[in-house]
Amino acid sequence: MLPRGRPRALGAAALLLLLLLIGFLLFRGDLDCERTEREASGGGAGPGSLPRSLTPRVPPDERPRPRGTAAFDGDPPADPGGRNGSDCTPPRPRPPKCELLQVAIVCAGHNSSRDVITLVKSMLFYRKNPLHLHLVTDAVARNILETLFHTWMVPAVRISFYNADELKPQVSWIPNKHYSGLYGLMKLVLPSALPPDLARVIVLDTDVTFASNIAELWALFAHFSDKQVIGLVENQSDWYLGNLWRNHRPWPALGRGFNTGVILLRLDRLRQAGWEQMWKLTATRELLTLPATSLADQDIFNAIIKEHPWLVRPLPCVWNVQLSDHTLAERCYSEASDLKVIHWNSPKKLRVKNKHVESFRNLYLTFLEYDGNLLRRELFGCPCPPPPGAEQLQRALAQLDEEDACFEFRRQQLTVHRVHITFLPHKPPPPQPHDVTLVAQLSMDRLQMLEALCRHWPGPMSLALYLTDAEAQQFLRFVETSVVLSGRQDVAYHVVYREGPLYPINQLRNVALAQALTPYVFLSDIDFLPAYSLYDYLRASIKQLELGSGRKAALVVPAFETLHYRFSFPSSKAELLALLDAGSLHTFRYHEWPRGHAPTDYARWREAQAPYHVQWAADYEPYVVVPRDCPRYDPRFVGFGWNKVAHVVELDAQEYELLVLPEAFVIHLPHAPSLDISRFRSSPTYRDCLQALKDEFHQDLSRHYGAAALKYLTALQQPRGPT
Amino acid sequence: MLPRGRPRALGAAALLLLLLLIGFLLFRGDLDCERTEREASGGGAGPGSLPRSLTPRVPPDERPRPRGTAAFDGDPPADPGGRNGSDCTPPRPRPPKCELLQVAIVCAGHNSSRDVITLVKSMLFYRKNPLHLHLVTDAVARNILETLFHTWMVPAVRISFYNADELKPQVSWIPNKHYSGLYGLMKLVLPSALPPDLARVIVLDTDVTFASNIAELWALFAHFSDKQVIGLVENQSDWYLGNLWRNHRPWPALGRGFNTGVILLRLDRLRQAGWEQMWKLTATRELLTLPATSLADQDIFNAIIKEHPWLVRPLPCVWNVQLSDHTLAERCYSEASDLKVIHWNSPKKLRVKNKHVESFRNLYLTFLEYDGNLLRRELFGCPCPPPPGAEQLQRALAQLDEEDACFEFRRQQLTVHRVHITFLPHKPPPPQPHDVTLVAQLSMDRLQMLEALCRHWPGPMSLALYLTDAEAQQFLRFVETSVVLSGRQDVAYHVVYREGPLYPINQLRNVALAQALTPYVFLSDIDFLPAYSLYDYLRASIKQLELGSGRKAALVVPAFETLHYRFSFPSSKAELLALLDAGSLHTFRYHEWPRGHAPTDYARWREAQAPYHVQWAADYEPYVVVPRDCPRYDPRFVGFGWNKVAHVVELDAQEYELLVLPEAFVIHLPHAPSLDISRFRSSPTYRDCLQALKDEFHQDLSRHYGAAALKYLTALQQPRGPT
Repeated sequence: MLPRGRPRALGAAALLLLLLLIGFLLFRGDLDCERTEREASGGGAGPGSLPRSLTPRVPPDERPRPRGTAAFDGDPPADPGGRNGSDCTPPRPRPPKCELLQVAIVCAGHNSSRDVITLVKSMLFYRKNPLHLHLVTDAVARNILETLFHTWMVPAVRISFYNADELKPQVSWIPNKHYSGLYGLMKLVLPSALPPDLARVIVLDTDVTFASNIAELWALFAHFSDKQVIGLVENQSDWYLGNLWRNHRPWPALGRGFNTGVILLRLDRLRQAGWEQMWKLTATRELLTLPATSLADQDIFNAIIKEHPWLVRPLPCVWNVQLSDHTLAERCYSEASDLKVIHWNSPKKLRVKNKHVESFRNLYLTFLEYDGNLLRRELFGCPCPPPPGAEQLQRALAQLDEEDACFEFRRQQLTVHRVHITFLPHKPPPPQPHDVTLVAQLSMDRLQMLEALCRHWPGPMSLALYLTDAEAQQFLRFVETSVVLSGRQDVAYHVVYREGPLYPINQLRNVALAQALTPYVFLSDIDFLPAYSLYDYLRASIKQLELGSGRKAALVVPAFETLHYRFSFPSSKAELLALLDAGSLHTFRYHEWPRGHAPTDYARWREAQAPYHVQWAADYEPYVVVPRDCPRYDPRFVGFGWNKVAHVVELDAQEYELLVLPEAFVIHLPHAPSLDISRFRSSPTYRDCLQALKDEFHQDLSRHYGAAALKYLTALQQPRGPT
Repeated sequence: MLPRGRPRALGAAALLLLLLLIGFLLFRGDLDCERTEREASGGGAGPGSLPRSLTPRVPPDERPRPRGTAAFDGDPPADPGGRNGSDCTPPRPRPPKCELLQVAIVCAGHNSSRDVITLVKSMLFYRKNPLHLHLVTDAVARNILETLFHTWMVPAVRISFYNADELKPQVSWIPNKHYSGLYGLMKLVLPSALPPDLARVIVLDTDVTFASNIAELWALFAHFSDKQVIGLVENQSDWYLGNLWRNHRPWPALGRGFNTGVILLRLDRLRQAGWEQMWKLTATRELLTLPATSLADQDIFNAIIKEHPWLVRPLPCVWNVQLSDHTLAERCYSEASDLKVIHWNSPKKLRVKNKHVESFRNLYLTFLEYDGNLLRRELFGCPCPPPPGAEQLQRALAQLDEEDACFEFRRQQLTVHRVHITFLPHKPPPPQPHDVTLVAQLSMDRLQMLEALCRHWPGPMSLALYLTDAEAQQFLRFVETSVVLSGRQDVAYHVVYREGPLYPINQLRNVALAQALTPYVFLSDIDFLPAYSLYDYLRASIKQLELGSGRKAALVVPAFETLHYRFSFPSSKAELLALLDAGSLHTFRYHEWPRGHAPTDYARWREAQAPYHVQWAADYEPYVVVPRDCPRYDPRFVGFGWNKVAHVVELDAQEYELLVLPEAFVIHLPHAPSLDISRFRSSPTYRDCLQALKDEFHQDLSRHYGAAALKYLTALQQPRGPT
C-alpha cells in the first residue's frame, strides 16, 4: 500500500499548497498586520524619479522656507502637488484602516528602556492601526524590552530587534559631543540596518511623547513630492543660526535647521539614492573643519539637507514640539489647537524650565503612570495574529467557571503579569563560584525595609516588586532620594505589574529567582534582616560544604522575630541567644505557627558548632540557600498561605539534604498583617480555596513522584495546629 | 480740597468705566470662556424658520431612515445643506478654537456622582475647548460635586448647579419603570430648567465614556437643518421593534428608535416650538394606553420623534456605542476606525457580557483610574479666567524658593488636594444632642484596620482616605467585598487625592473633621481600637459632664499599645489593667516617647473613679473628644511629627479644660514604621524642616495669643527626650 500511496499523497499536498497560495493572494488584504511595506513602496512615484545625482541644483519653488516661521502652524501644509485648483480643503489624510505602520527607535541601557516604554504607551494609547516596532538596542535594553513585550501581550504589535553593537563600527569614527553618545548617531544607518523590503519608517527619539494618533503622522508620507525622502520638523531654537554665544560655530543648516527627534524616512528612496555614501561624504567633509558633532545625527542630517534641500519634506511643527529652556515652541502650540508630539529635547528632560512646562509634564506623567495592562485592547475590525501565547491563555481563561467560589484564585494563577526586569541601572556581579544572591519580593508597603536590608546584606540581591505603573515611579523616586539605595548597583529590581485581586507571591519569587546571576541564592522574605555577617558566612559555608561539586543541599538559615519597632540588632549568635533568653526575641512565629520552623530544632541550634541535618516535616517552611537551578515556586499559590511550604516539599521530594547552619540567622521585624492574611482569617471561602489548591498540589505531587509522595499526604492527615 | 476734588474724581471714574466698556466690546473675542450661547443662537437660521406647528407633515426626503442600518457608519453624514455640488468632501467640522462648549448632566446620589466624575475625566482628557457643565443634581450630588470641582481647579471649566428636587414636580406624574427613576426623566425639562439664553447643549447620561474630543460632537450641530432640534444616535438594540418577547409592547418609535444617552439639543428652537407642551401632550396621550415608561425619558423622546420625525437629526453611531448583552453595536464599531463615545447602558454596567467588553472596559478603567490632578492642564492659546483661588495659589507657589532645603515641605503645605467627600453611600446620623463621631485618616496600608474598627465602634465615623484615583477603586472593591463594611451606612469615607511626596496628615484630619455631622467628635488615629463600650460611654460622659451647655472641655481617652499581631482585646478596664501588669500591654509609646502621654497620669487613671483634670505639658498629644467646632489642625505640619501636639497646644491656648475619662481607653495595634517616620529618622534635613515648622508655629502662636503663648515656648526650652 505504502509505495503506491505516496505519489498520491504528494499530489494532494501540492494541491493543498496551491490552494493555500491562491487563498493567500486572494485574501492578503485581511493580513495587513503582517504585510510589509514592499507593496507600498512600489506604488505611486516609481524609483526612477529619484534624484540619484548629488548635485545641489534646487528648483526655487521646492526649496524649504529658510527661517520658516510659516511652518509654525497646526495643520499640514496644502497639498504640494496642487491636485485641483478649487478652494476646498482636501480632507485630512489618514492611512487606510488596519494598515501596518512601521516605527524605529534606537535604545540603549536601563534608563532609555524606561523612556521607550513611556513613549510606546503614549503611542499605543492613541493608535488605531497595527504597529511594527523596530528596536535597535544594546544587550541590556534588548533583555529588558524582550521580556517586557513578551509579557505585555499587546494585540496588533510586532517587535523586531536589531543589534546596536553590530552597527557601532559604522558610526564610531564620528567624534560626537552629544549626551546621546554613539547611539544618537545610529539613526543614520537605519536604511541599511532595517530589512531591505521596508520602504517607509517613522523614526523616534526615546524622549518624545505622543498626544495623538500616529496614523496622522504616517499619513504625511502622502504629502512627499517625488524627490522628498526625509520628513522633519523645523528646529524650535536658534542653535543653528550660530549666534547663541561668541564663537558659537554650529554645523551648517538651512536657516534654523531641522530637529531629528521625529523623522519620516522613505527608506526605499534613500537606499536608491545612495544614502550611505551621501551622509558619510558630508560628515567627512564637515569634520575637516569642525571638531565633532554637537547634536549627534542631527548635525549630519542638517548638513546634508543644506547641501541637498530637495530631500527634505518640512512637517507641521506640532509633530515635534521641542521643549528646552529657551524654546520657541510656544509660537507653534499657542496657535495650533492640537499638539501631536512633545519632545523633551533638553538634557534636563522633565526638569526643563519654561512657561508651560507643567502642562506638558502632566501629559507625560499621564503615560508614565498609565496602567499598561489597559493597552492590551484589541483593534476592532483589524484581524491580526494574536501575540505569542495569547490564544492559549484565552482558551484557559474561557474554561474557568465564573460561578466557582475559587474563580478569583484560578484567574489570578493564569494572569500573565507584565514584567520589567532591571527597572533601574544594575551591574551584574563578577562571576564567583560560591557567590550568593538574596532573593525576595515586596510591594509598596515594604519599601522602607530596603535601606536596612542593604545595610545588612552587602552582596547581590534580586528583588521582585509588585507595583502599579504609578507606584513604579514612586519607587524610582524613593531609590533616587536614598543615599544608601542609590549607592548600590548590585541590587536588581524587577517590577512585576499589578493585576488582579490576589498577591501572586510565588510568581514574584520566580521572577526574582530567574534573574539571580550568582550560582547560589538565598531565598528570603522582605521582612527579615540577615545577620550582618550572613553574606560572608554563607559564601564560606557553601565553599566548605562543597556544594559546588553537585551536592544537592538546602542550607537552612534559622529565623527569629522581634515585636519591637526599635530594636538593637544582635551582632553575634551569643548576643542573639541573650536576647532570646531575655524575651526580647522569639523564634519565628513561636506564638502563632510553631510548626513552620519547628524542624529547624532551635534547641539543637543553640549548642551547634557545625551544620546538622534535619528531616522534613509537614508545614516546614525554613529560609534556605540553594543552587540557582533549584525547583521553581508553584505559581498556583496566590495570596496568603502555603506558598513556601509547597516549595520546601518540592525540595524534599527532589531529595535535597536539609542542613542547618549553626552561625546563620535572620530576624523578622514587626508589621501590620497584610490584606491577604486578613482576608484569609476572615473569609471561610478563602480558606476553602487554599485547601483546594493544596489538594491539587498533592495530586500533582503524586503524579510526579508516585509512591514517594505518599509521605506528604500522610503527614497532612496528622493532627495539626492552626492554619 | 475735598469738596472741589470730588467731581473731578467722579469724572475720572466715569471715563475709566467708559474705557473699560470700550475695551470689553473690542476684545470680547478674547473672553470666549465667558461667552454664553446668546450670540450663537442668533446667527444662522433665524428663529422664524422653526416649526411652530405640531402637525406631523414630513417632507419625505427629510424623514429619518426607519431602520437606519446605514446610520451605522463611522463618519458624519454629508452636509445636508449641500453647500456645493463638487465631489470634494467638506472638511471634518470643528468648532472654532476656544469656543465654549455647553454640557448638561443629570446626577443624583453617591454612586452617580462617582460615575459623573469618570465621565468628566474622559471628557477633559480629550477636550481642547473651554467647557461649561450644567449639573442638575440632588442635594447629595451637589454637596459632593461642588467640593470636588472647587478643589479640582481645572482651568477653563465652569460649573453651574440646578436643583433637581425643584424640577421633580414637572416629571413625577409620569409612571416610570426604569432604574434611573425620576432623575432619568429630567432630561425632558432641560429647555426650561437651563438658562433662557443657552441655545445649544450636549446632554449626557452619567454612564457614558468619551474616547474622543467632545468638540467633534459639538460640531455636528452645524449639520442640523433648519427644522432639526434634537441630535440622537439610533438605538443599537431591537427593543423598540417590539418583538423581543410575547406581549412585549414598547413605546412607539421610528424603526429601531433612538437612544438618549447622548443628545444634542437646540434649546432655543425647542423653547420656541413649545417643547414643554409638546412632550407633555405626547406623554399624556401614550399613557392612556401604556401603563408606564420602561426606558424613562427615552420612551417619550421616541414617541415625540415618531410623531414629528423632522425634529431629529440622526447622529453617526460612533457617538453612542451602546453596550448591552445583545447589543448590535458591533456593526458600528467594527467598521468605524474611531469610537467616539461608549455608553454602558445595560443595568449590569461594566459587568455586561458581550464579545468585546474587555476592550471597552479597559477604556473605561483608563479614566476611572486616571489621576485627575493631571487634568489641571491649561488650554494653550485660550485665555480663560482662572478657577477660583488658582491665582492666589500660583502667587504663593511662585514665592517659594526651590533652593530652600524645606521646599518640599512648603510646597506640600500649599497643595490643594482634590477632595471627594462621601465617596460611598452614606446616611447621616439622626440628630442627637450628645452624639459623637470618630474622626481619623488613613491610606491604603491601613485598610485592614477598618473592619476591626467597625466592630469596636458602632457609632458614626468620618474617615479621610489619602488615595490615588486607582487606589480609590481598590478601596471601593474592598468595602464591597466586606460584609462588615458594606453593612454600615454611618461611616462616611472622604477621599483626598494624593499629590506630593509628604503625607498631608493635618489636612486629612481637617477634611474628616469638617464632615463630621454630630455635635461631638472623637479625634482618633486609625491604628487604635477603642474599648467596645467607648461609644456609649463617651455619649454618657458628654451628657453627664454637661458639655452641651457651652463648657469648653476636651475629654482625654487614655492610650495603650500592644506589640502582638494577635491579641485578645480587654473587655473592661480591669482586664486591661491585668494585661498591663502582665506586660502584654503598655501605655502608648512608653518605650519610645513617654512625654507624648505622660500628662494623662496613668498611675492616677488606674485608681480613678471619676473624670479628673490634667494640665497641659510640652509634647502632650492625647486622643480627645471635643465639640465639632473645635480648632482645626494646623495644615503646615505635613509628614511625620508634631501634627497632633500643635493641635493640643491650640486647645490649651483656647482654654479647653483637659479631663481624663476613668473608663475610657484605646489600644494601638502594631505596624511597620511609615515611610515618613523612616525619613524623619534617617534624614537630618527632614528633622531640621520639622524644627523650622515648629518655630514658625510658635511665632504665629505668640502673634495670636500674645504673652499667654509664652508658656509654650518656655516649655520647649526645657530638657527633652528624643524627638
